[in-house]
Amino acid sequence: MPRVVYLGPEGTFSEQAARALGRAEVLPGGSALAPSATIDEAVRAVSGTSDAEPTAELAVVPVENSVEGSVVATLDALSSGAPTVAVAETVLPVRFSVLTRPGTTLDRVRTVATHPHAAAQVRNWLAENVPRAAVLPSTSTAAAARSVRDGEVDASVSTPVAAEHYGLAAVAEDVADVRHAETRFLLLSRPVAPPPPTGWDRTSIAVVLPNHPGSLAGALHELALRDISLSRIESRPTRNRLGEYRFFLDLDGHVGESRMADGLAALRRRCVTVRFLGSFAKADAIPRVHGPDEGRHTSDEVFAEASAWVRAVREGREV
Amino acid sequence: MPRVVYLGPEGTFSEQAARALGRAEVLPGGSALAPSATIDEAVRAVSGTSDAEPTAELAVVPVENSVEGSVVATLDALSSGAPTVAVAETVLPVRFSVLTRPGTTLDRVRTVATHPHAAAQVRNWLAENVPRAAVLPSTSTAAAARSVRDGEVDASVSTPVAAEHYGLAAVAEDVADVRHAETRFLLLSRPVAPPPPTGWDRTSIAVVLPNHPGSLAGALHELALRDISLSRIESRPTRNRLGEYRFFLDLDGHVGESRMADGLAALRRRCVTVRFLGSFAKADAIPRVHGPDEGRHTSDEVFAEASAWVRAVREGREV
Repeated sequence: MPRVVYLGPEGTFSEQAARALGRAEVLPGGSALAPSATIDEAVRAVSGTSDAEPTAELAVVPVENSVEGSVVATLDALSSGAPTVAVAETVLPVRFSVLTRPGTTLDRVRTVATHPHAAAQVRNWLAENVPRAAVLPSTSTAAAARSVRDGEVDASVSTPVAAEHYGLAAVAEDVADVRHAETRFLLLSRPVAPPPPTGWDRTSIAVVLPNHPGSLAGALHELALRDISLSRIESRPTRNRLGEYRFFLDLDGHVGESRMADGLAALRRRCVTVRFLGSFAKADAIPRVHGPDEGRHTSDEVFAEASAWVRAVREGREV
Repeated sequence: MPRVVYLGPEGTFSEQAARALGRAEVLPGGSALAPSATIDEAVRAVSGTSDAEPTAELAVVPVENSVEGSVVATLDALSSGAPTVAVAETVLPVRFSVLTRPGTTLDRVRTVATHPHAAAQVRNWLAENVPRAAVLPSTSTAAAARSVRDGEVDASVSTPVAAEHYGLAAVAEDVADVRHAETRFLLLSRPVAPPPPTGWDRTSIAVVLPNHPGSLAGALHELALRDISLSRIESRPTRNRLGEYRFFLDLDGHVGESRMADGLAALRRRCVTVRFLGSFAKADAIPRVHGPDEGRHTSDEVFAEASAWVRAVREGREV
């Protein structure tokens, strides 16, 4: 039975993301879900370490939140240790449920537990709907639900899936001060051939560049020359050498396309290191602006014709 | 008396950063420190809003942590609303003190409160030194210290400065699992002329680029052509238009230098918007690699000579 770990404990948004991937039949049939204590533990369960064999086939971890930004623990885990690749992604809206023990109504709630991050995202809602309730911090939104079950507090701000785990009732759903906040999750595997291109794909890489002015501009020009758009860039100090940076890039396209394969090869020539983090279908639906000439000199056909021509020239054949 | 707000409550690392800036005589003499509930509130206290006059001269907020990455709330506050500029920065090592009521020794500690972020950074230390203690979450490391004072828990993991505010004793200092973790803080002001160049300066900007492949590469090339190094880059969706991104850039150099002034003008021509977030002395000491030709065509003298020559050509003077 394939084992799929997610950032736990039970009842987190990561579990909800894993279930969504299961419903979409992205997970293999009969997959068993299991929580991990930390993001690093989830990634190492899939990749293994120098001391330990892998204990799971796949892992589901958050990578980016529209309000909080990148999940740095995930970026650091992906770029160090034994490699893994993302084979799919899913995006969840950040909407909380307010959970109570069955029978407790909202007007009876005097104490509400949740994680401080979640508290910050529902502050206005709580002020309007339970103005007299004290808000108590917990280590996760799932732990908050557990403390409701255990009778320690009246209500929690948790994920919808936590209601099931802890036998609670939702007295309010879709609670969020910031509308349209969402979190993107990756499904990680040991290195495998990427899923086939869909025409709407993301390629993620982590590169370390030589430490001189213009090295990043040069690398991005290699991509631009091949009509490859960036949808994300972020620098992190490598901590190996002072002044050395690792850049996390999300590119529009799939390594199965010639322009992307050629662009990644160009980066490989220019960069100190390039780690491939996956090519997979994008879960969001942000339309892309195509320039009038786009594709004219970067389609697979044009790449194939150009390679054939150079081969012919080298071999002295008629061209 | 100049009013300086910091991200509160009393006893946070931001207060400690504000005090460090006071000791270094970067704050005006006689400054009064006051806590703010949120980062946005601290920034708005300085900038004012359409509804409210400014209530403080300066603000101290965290901008970047070496373990957690950028503080997105600060980036978002700096790039929206009425403008502010950073006039100084300071870097603090992330080291906690374990605080108890005077007379309580470590072996008597059965409950320890702290913020979940801090708990993650001292987990190993607690497991080794107080293995039998329960770790309880609090809304901030300062709130944890307050709950020690109030007799609710035995100890807190807090900042050194919290001991003073809450009349506590430090039973352990310099506690941190991750060595060399540090946080960078900015001192914000309403727009003013930047402090003079020191030769070791940072210039921060936020730019929105046109949505087409190569626009970022082009912008970075403008900087590289002028020997301007990047020390940080990060993209954030603008939420105004789908597929539109804001980039936060930290550049080595000062707007008072010709190459930087010329580079910023070039970005101003290329970008949808450019917001200047300050030129100020860098607090860290990462050495910079200078290429053999660096400065040969980008010194102030070379810029002045080139401008004079173009002026002469335009005026038909002997050159």
